Amino acid sequence: MRKRSVISLKNRPCIINAASVVGKTESEGPLNTLFDVMYPDDGAGSKSWEEAEASLVHEAVEVLLRKTKKEADDIDLIFGGDLLNQCTATTFGVKKYGIPLAGLFGACSTFALGMCLAALAVDGGYTENSIAVASSHFCSAEKQFRYPLEYGGQRAPSAQRTVTGAGACLISHAGSDVKIEKLLLGTVLDLNVTDPANMGAAMAPAAYKTLSDFMAETGTLPEDYDMLLTGDLGSVGSGILRRLMRDNAGIDISEKHYDCGNMIFDPYLQDVHAGGSGCGCSAAVVCSKIFKDLKAGRLKKVLFAGTGALMSPLTSQQKAGIPGIAHAVLITSEVHKVED
Amino acid sequence: MRKRSVISLKNRPCIINAASVVGKTESEGPLNTLFDVMYPDDGAGSKSWEEAEASLVHEAVEVLLRKTKKEADDIDLIFGGDLLNQCTATTFGVKKYGIPLAGLFGACSTFALGMCLAALAVDGGYTENSIAVASSHFCSAEKQFRYPLEYGGQRAPSAQRTVTGAGACLISHAGSDVKIEKLLLGTVLDLNVTDPANMGAAMAPAAYKTLSDFMAETGTLPEDYDMLLTGDLGSVGSGILRRLMRDNAGIDISEKHYDCGNMIFDPYLQDVHAGGSGCGCSAAVVCSKIFKDLKAGRLKKVLFAGTGALMSPLTSQQKAGIPGIAHAVLITSEVHKVED
Repeated sequence: MRKRSVISLKNRPCIINAASVVGKTESEGPLNTLFDVMYPDDGAGSKSWEEAEASLVHEAVEVLLRKTKKEADDIDLIFGGDLLNQCTATTFGVKKYGIPLAGLFGACSTFALGMCLAALAVDGGYTENSIAVASSHFCSAEKQFRYPLEYGGQRAPSAQRTVTGAGACLISHAGSDVKIEKLLLGTVLDLNVTDPANMGAAMAPAAYKTLSDFMAETGTLPEDYDMLLTGDLGSVGSGILRRLMRDNAGIDISEKHYDCGNMIFDPYLQDVHAGGSGCGCSAAVVCSKIFKDLKAGRLKKVLFAGTGALMSPLTSQQKAGIPGIAHAVLITSEVHKVED
Repeated sequence: MRKRSVISLKNRPCIINAASVVGKTESEGPLNTLFDVMYPDDGAGSKSWEEAEASLVHEAVEVLLRKTKKEADDIDLIFGGDLLNQCTATTFGVKKYGIPLAGLFGACSTFALGMCLAALAVDGGYTENSIAVASSHFCSAEKQFRYPLEYGGQRAPSAQRTVTGAGACLISHAGSDVKIEKLLLGTVLDLNVTDPANMGAAMAPAAYKTLSDFMAETGTLPEDYDMLLTGDLGSVGSGILRRLMRDNAGIDISEKHYDCGNMIFDPYLQDVHAGGSGCGCSAAVVCSKIFKDLKAGRLKKVLFAGTGALMSPLTSQQKAGIPGIAHAVLITSEVHKVED
């Protein structure tokens, strides 16, 4: 057995602020008053969907710098990634800043992975200011992972909609009452789910493992948290996670569990099937609603487990299973609740 | 101006050991007595080139665990990545171990990036044992980035050959006289080189920036090092780097500069055009010759700058420039030279 997994951050680095940028469908969803930038169309004035996604990344960092009154030169390191082949949205999105980049790949768990590593770098005193950023784009993802958009392919009811969006947060050693306390990097879990139209099922076991390991190692239960937040299992994966927690760990998380993929779209008003997904989904939700609720003291303790499906179109064509991973970050707020 | 960039590691984490696994062409090259495993053919007994690449990753970690007498459960975290879309060689290569994974993407700079982040995690006391691993495979890369292998496409003289190989090293807080002293994470540099058959030219400016920044900030010159090692500029990129250093920084690195892409193949006996490339190139070279030379005290101070071309086939089709990046690691040895 592994001796320890949960990492405690002795200096509890702060999330200074966060910025979110989304596309049209997301701006029509239930969180639409909380995003910083909403593009009226997903093209974002760019020549290609990939360029548009890079613009989301650039804009998220731009807004974050503005909100935190920082210059690019004040930032020591960006931890960032996306879903595109060779993570080009991140590279092209941040290249103008001249900020050192640690490129990440964790599929939809990338934002949580970025928060983990940025927090480590700050906590250890290696960087003063680190940014975590992640993005995805519905059109660039459909084109790359599924069908050409023009084909108008039908999507399965278990399929999630890739979020057009990006989120970025600034992590520093001091300056905010929203803090990162602990983290748990996830392991790759492949239970041979092979349906690429059901990523929620592929990722749920990894979310189960990370959340149950975290709670077991820290001796906590759902009632110790304000929110157990996954990103992004969607409706199908969320059901599987809740059942796995109840049946295997004897823990009922239903009152505390929320999922970024379920929060970003309205399941009744928007035709999104099993909810949202993509690196940009949890990034945009955490960097809007969750951060604002922590900042206002409405949330005090959030265990955020970003989930990722580590497949490629090719591994699915080759009939490999879809491995899942989940990285967890414990975020707390010491803000006294203020009424809005 | 950025205030500081070079990160000094106060506890100087150790490289305990390293393992390298390569394919057929690499095993016919000048370093062939130094690799741990040499596959007689690049198929590695797998059903696909992608599976073969995942086997290289798995084998590199396996050999490393054996050499260091560690179990998978002793390892806290793997930092790994590769060139495949969605980094699947790493995911599938490490999934059997159940070791937490931080997935990285830095193109051919991935191994250096992994060393940097693994060293940070160990130095800060967040992990006891971290592994950095990276891989590439000639056949999976040709198929994905260039032409189907069966097409037998001609390669330009400036093109590099993707190395079939993987390298893994174990970084811990104590237990070896080979230590990581400092690091410098690189920035994305895009000078609008657009020829994907000339990655060396695209990466050389990033190598120049990282090496010259490192030497300027630490007040050092080439004579302070035993080796300035780039990975992997190849012959074309190496020439550009040397000229940039001489003409822009007034520093002649020619006596101390080596490049993993030039070392792994024989330019006269092997038909490899501008040398080797791919995440596996610097990983395999650093984890064989370089580590052995440090371990034996033949090298005392190596500044290793892993270089990456952060493009995708799609960004090249869309006529974007090829952004480069270079991450640097200063490795020292306190071993008294022993004669072989």
